[in-house]
Amino acid sequence: MSIRCPTPNHEDEVVLLGHGAGGRLTAELLDRLVLPAVGGGTGPLEDAALLPGHPGLVMSTDSFVVSPLFFPGGDIGSLAVHGTVNDLAMRGARPLALSVSLIVEEGLPLTELRSVMASLGKAAQDVGVPVITGDTKVVGRGAADRLFINTTGVGQRHELLCPSAALARSGDVVLLSGPVGLHGTTVLSTREGLGFESDIASDTRPLHRLVRELAPLGAAVHVLRDPTRGGLAAALNEIARDSSVAVEIEESAVPVPEAVASACDLLGLDPLVVANEGCLLAFVDAGAADRALAALRSLPEGAQAVRIGEVLREGPRGRVTLRTLVGARRIVDMPLGEQLPRIC
Amino acid sequence: MSIRCPTPNHEDEVVLLGHGAGGRLTAELLDRLVLPAVGGGTGPLEDAALLPGHPGLVMSTDSFVVSPLFFPGGDIGSLAVHGTVNDLAMRGARPLALSVSLIVEEGLPLTELRSVMASLGKAAQDVGVPVITGDTKVVGRGAADRLFINTTGVGQRHELLCPSAALARSGDVVLLSGPVGLHGTTVLSTREGLGFESDIASDTRPLHRLVRELAPLGAAVHVLRDPTRGGLAAALNEIARDSSVAVEIEESAVPVPEAVASACDLLGLDPLVVANEGCLLAFVDAGAADRALAALRSLPEGAQAVRIGEVLREGPRGRVTLRTLVGARRIVDMPLGEQLPRIC
Repeated sequence: MSIRCPTPNHEDEVVLLGHGAGGRLTAELLDRLVLPAVGGGTGPLEDAALLPGHPGLVMSTDSFVVSPLFFPGGDIGSLAVHGTVNDLAMRGARPLALSVSLIVEEGLPLTELRSVMASLGKAAQDVGVPVITGDTKVVGRGAADRLFINTTGVGQRHELLCPSAALARSGDVVLLSGPVGLHGTTVLSTREGLGFESDIASDTRPLHRLVRELAPLGAAVHVLRDPTRGGLAAALNEIARDSSVAVEIEESAVPVPEAVASACDLLGLDPLVVANEGCLLAFVDAGAADRALAALRSLPEGAQAVRIGEVLREGPRGRVTLRTLVGARRIVDMPLGEQLPRIC
Repeated sequence: MSIRCPTPNHEDEVVLLGHGAGGRLTAELLDRLVLPAVGGGTGPLEDAALLPGHPGLVMSTDSFVVSPLFFPGGDIGSLAVHGTVNDLAMRGARPLALSVSLIVEEGLPLTELRSVMASLGKAAQDVGVPVITGDTKVVGRGAADRLFINTTGVGQRHELLCPSAALARSGDVVLLSGPVGLHGTTVLSTREGLGFESDIASDTRPLHRLVRELAPLGAAVHVLRDPTRGGLAAALNEIARDSSVAVEIEESAVPVPEAVASACDLLGLDPLVVANEGCLLAFVDAGAADRALAALRSLPEGAQAVRIGEVLREGPRGRVTLRTLVGARRIVDMPLGEQLPRIC
């Protein structure tokens, strides 16, 4: 009997922080290593997957490793609920049930764990989704950084909605439900003590109600995506790639809060690559755009919804461009790797 | 805007390794902290939960933190598939779909990750369950120990089966599908270099086929449980508690491989508290016991199935006793805390 304990062929073939950043390195790791192993990789990568044999049901999973555990506007507990609820919502589903699995570092104060769990429970209650099963593992000091949480959700699709990252079409209007960059800059500023955290707060919130409001528009809603890791840039590039279309957005139309802009200036970051946890992108048929915008604006979480761009009728497929304030065009690239580690 | 950053009331109120061991400390943590926060704790704790509104579907989640990643008989990849498939099976379900979520430490050799993912993919294929969605997070060096994997599964119940830890009844026969103690002693021996790892291997395997064989017995199958963390002792105590019955097992009937007994002797461990990852306990109606035993023995993974005890018609409720080789009785307690950290 032998132990399989493989050794690397090359010293430098190791996992990098950027492999978890939601950008090109993440896509490479998925395409070359993870997906082939599990027999996947044939269709577009979606936020949630359809359950075989149960076409109305979708499933999504996310592990949360945000540091610090508490930040203005939220904490790892509420974030873990919102993140998975939102992934389900982006497939047009309302959440039916969540599982919660904890990996706790020995020595974590019980009051902190209690606080996180209270926040998680409250977030689930606010959404109206029951936590039906769970798991708790404890590892020794130094084997994890305080607390990691996995949430996995099962959702039921709204009957008329069947959005997919592959369904954007020429002429579609691109809508955004609110300002960008708040979550990533808040977490980073809190962790590093940059001072912006007194002016901004994470936008972490559930998006399923916005999706419910869009449901009557049915098949006119082509794509829904919440721009988390990799920000707006990653989400738009994934959609352009999976739908094989050219997307153009107007710089002047993308709402960037002043404090986010200041923080990004200081840090040398593009607000378009900063993670959000409470806004959604919708690609909708041009004829339904006004109704979709009105639907989003009918709820507080969509009050600042705006039209930010369109799918060009002609243009390089898979490409995202930005029309700048002075009317020039620049390419919005898929972010390569990690600019903001451990923000979710 | 303020950050909630609670401080502990008492220096010593922190999470201990034993809180994750599957014994009394785990139960306390769940009962006092986790379950109240998520509105649970009213029914028996099962390996998998029923999906609201879809009575035929069950859901289960598990995070795997085993160290080392590779051990005789398996690795964290296959273990992560078997663990969740088995939790679904213990609620009488065949697996429909899995999600896989990775937390990877920066610097993990890609060849090791590739090897784990290949094993995970092969295990899922052997079971016949698709991995339909996933997530990958990377944390900095020292923020996690190499690799943690969460798997969450959705399963479909066999029509006639509705086992529950609360359904053991007076007169039930207790069956065990194979020898105990292999997984825990193998992982521990490998990690610590104790030398037993050349003679033993983990029993990690899927148990859903054994459950399929039991399905025709229907409601005569009262309880199914795989004795993982906390071993046979924890599983029997949970069943005795949740069903409010007295359980008695025969020491002579419990199959303990010689190498397991030797390792446990050296380590001062009771084989009854050592984790298993490939055997199941079944509490069945006495009238169906012979058929159940034959069903288990009809498959290779149940070839060594035995009858190990019964539910007493009279006796202290919630209590598990062992009739020793010399005919004396001793109480089998719920293990308190951590004897074998990070074995799953």
